[in-house]
Amino acid sequence: MSDVYIVGVDMIKFGRFPEKTVPQLGAKAALMALDDAGLKIQDMQALYCGNLGQANAMVGQRILQEIGQTGISVVNCANACATGATAFREAWMSIKAGVFDCVLAVGVEQMGRGLLGGGGGGSGISKEGLLGSGTMPAVFAEAGMEHARNHGTTFEQFAKVSVKNHHHSTMNPKAMYQIETPLETVMNSEMISYPNTKLMCSVNVDGSAAAVLVSEKKAKELGMGRAVKVLASVLTSDPYTDRDLTMPDVNAVTRLAAKQAYEMAGVGPEDINLVELHDCFATAEILHYENLGLCKDGEAGRMIDDGDVALGGRIPVNVSGGLLSKGHPLGATGIANIYEVSTHLRGEADKRQVEGAKIGMTHVIGLGSACAIHILEKVA
Amino acid sequence: MSDVYIVGVDMIKFGRFPEKTVPQLGAKAALMALDDAGLKIQDMQALYCGNLGQANAMVGQRILQEIGQTGISVVNCANACATGATAFREAWMSIKAGVFDCVLAVGVEQMGRGLLGGGGGGSGISKEGLLGSGTMPAVFAEAGMEHARNHGTTFEQFAKVSVKNHHHSTMNPKAMYQIETPLETVMNSEMISYPNTKLMCSVNVDGSAAAVLVSEKKAKELGMGRAVKVLASVLTSDPYTDRDLTMPDVNAVTRLAAKQAYEMAGVGPEDINLVELHDCFATAEILHYENLGLCKDGEAGRMIDDGDVALGGRIPVNVSGGLLSKGHPLGATGIANIYEVSTHLRGEADKRQVEGAKIGMTHVIGLGSACAIHILEKVA
Repeated sequence: MSDVYIVGVDMIKFGRFPEKTVPQLGAKAALMALDDAGLKIQDMQALYCGNLGQANAMVGQRILQEIGQTGISVVNCANACATGATAFREAWMSIKAGVFDCVLAVGVEQMGRGLLGGGGGGSGISKEGLLGSGTMPAVFAEAGMEHARNHGTTFEQFAKVSVKNHHHSTMNPKAMYQIETPLETVMNSEMISYPNTKLMCSVNVDGSAAAVLVSEKKAKELGMGRAVKVLASVLTSDPYTDRDLTMPDVNAVTRLAAKQAYEMAGVGPEDINLVELHDCFATAEILHYENLGLCKDGEAGRMIDDGDVALGGRIPVNVSGGLLSKGHPLGATGIANIYEVSTHLRGEADKRQVEGAKIGMTHVIGLGSACAIHILEKVA
Repeated sequence: MSDVYIVGVDMIKFGRFPEKTVPQLGAKAALMALDDAGLKIQDMQALYCGNLGQANAMVGQRILQEIGQTGISVVNCANACATGATAFREAWMSIKAGVFDCVLAVGVEQMGRGLLGGGGGGSGISKEGLLGSGTMPAVFAEAGMEHARNHGTTFEQFAKVSVKNHHHSTMNPKAMYQIETPLETVMNSEMISYPNTKLMCSVNVDGSAAAVLVSEKKAKELGMGRAVKVLASVLTSDPYTDRDLTMPDVNAVTRLAAKQAYEMAGVGPEDINLVELHDCFATAEILHYENLGLCKDGEAGRMIDDGDVALGGRIPVNVSGGLLSKGHPLGATGIANIYEVSTHLRGEADKRQVEGAKIGMTHVIGLGSACAIHILEKVA
């Protein structure tokens, strides 16, 4: 099986773009990633598209209407908040399979249209679906409180996650927000579901991100200069049978994925230099320090207190600003994370650069449930 | 790369099941396919699910809630009427990639909920999407009339497709209908969009189908007795740039896919013993005889007149009854076609058996556009 390399990756600055269509937003990131690779749509053999709001409306094919209809294989994927990562993983799979050498993965979401945003066009989430806007704050509040009960984690520690990620985003020109949020501001913002205040909830934005994946043969042809190697790609679902999906176990699905990812990559948590993880709520980030093995169980509160997970710390987490400040356009998030980690591995992250980064990890969770983890490695 | 084998495949009898949920319908076919393989959900390493009506609602994961949550990789795919075939193809890809040895693919649709049915729950098609119920009859009527202008194809010849497929379905206990429709009845039924009358349009039903795909290593372990080999799996999109997708070129996308499929399989049209093709309208079937290379351009009318494409003819087409009489539950159709062809290759098609069938082809088109073709071969 061929190894798989990322040779182009980019994202648009996250924001609100009600004047654009979903395919237009996706096309923009696609062209940026192609430019980054020095390739054209005519060089691509397949497109994998991740979008949730118009999951049944052939968004991948409509992106090709914007940038060139070349007759290639197009697959549209949806997997809740793991949608973009799933599209990336299927692109990876198609190269691993030896079916293609050069594949484009695009993740895109327009949150104002349907979904959580509720307005405009778009198909909206099924009533029978699992993404009711009421359930997510409850799930992650409850999961945080369980951590507090077991390990004495404090409201202040949860809030510090938001302070850190907002600080990181002041150095990321592609983040939705570039503002500092002092601890008091975070703790005193509107309470959504204890212990998460409004500033501890992910930001509802439009966005898109894209990546060009190639086989080893093609990567060598192109020159490996800025290539990033995909060491692991895994996807798990809920491993239990005794619960209702309205309260998924966000820990179990991540622990299973982390175990598989480290095994596939042949590395351990101690080898990881930066992590973009699914901070859909501040409580979630705390849980995932432990779920991903970045520290031992019960040590997550100390990780945030000691600055281990801040830029300059032992293992910086969400240096992009994370979902809490960069923003969380559902279908785009998985590939935006891959953009962030790749940018550090290439040494191109400017002010927020994690110095000497050689291996990075991305993690997303889709309720319902899906957890995707990718481990990426610097090549040159 | 490992060859890929189908070791279990089944479908429910198509019909109307408003009392069931989409996951329940999908779970039923999944369990039937597992039974057919002599395997359990615990033996599966991944699930690929195709569903259009609730494409953003984690149908794959909800199927696992019905039959066992084992933590496996779940991907939800949507590709208009090629949705089920796309899920099957991604399952095939994951085995080709050497990532998995044993994968379940499920296609399911509940047409009464959302989509063309319009009632009940479900998310419905996006207003910005491409599947407006008004456009499909127009597209396939126009494409048929173009064939009539170029080749002198008659209303009667188009109508004979429906007579043939309804006759075939009288021998298929899993088809929605088992009734003969004489030529006069077909020609005198309500005119939908000339030259397609109501009996020349596909049937709006609920349905599900599933397949268990395995690697060569796993197939040998299980014994190859009833295994079917996947010789080719291809997926194309619209190869042009100068048109609007509201009138897709149903011919070009199929011709491109057929060329790729024959190349991948290393066989030609003369080697194919039966075809399940996308007769969403009677006109479409006529076009695809030529698009798939079953005859020369301009000979399709003669093919239906001479009985070449009927059971007992040179190359039987839609022996299942096709979309015109078996029914067309969008997300299920691609895998239901694979069930039909596999059943003949296994020699288990009873009254409608295509004698001595060794190689068969399935074809679906999703407007928007996507064309998936699979070529399957008898093993033992």
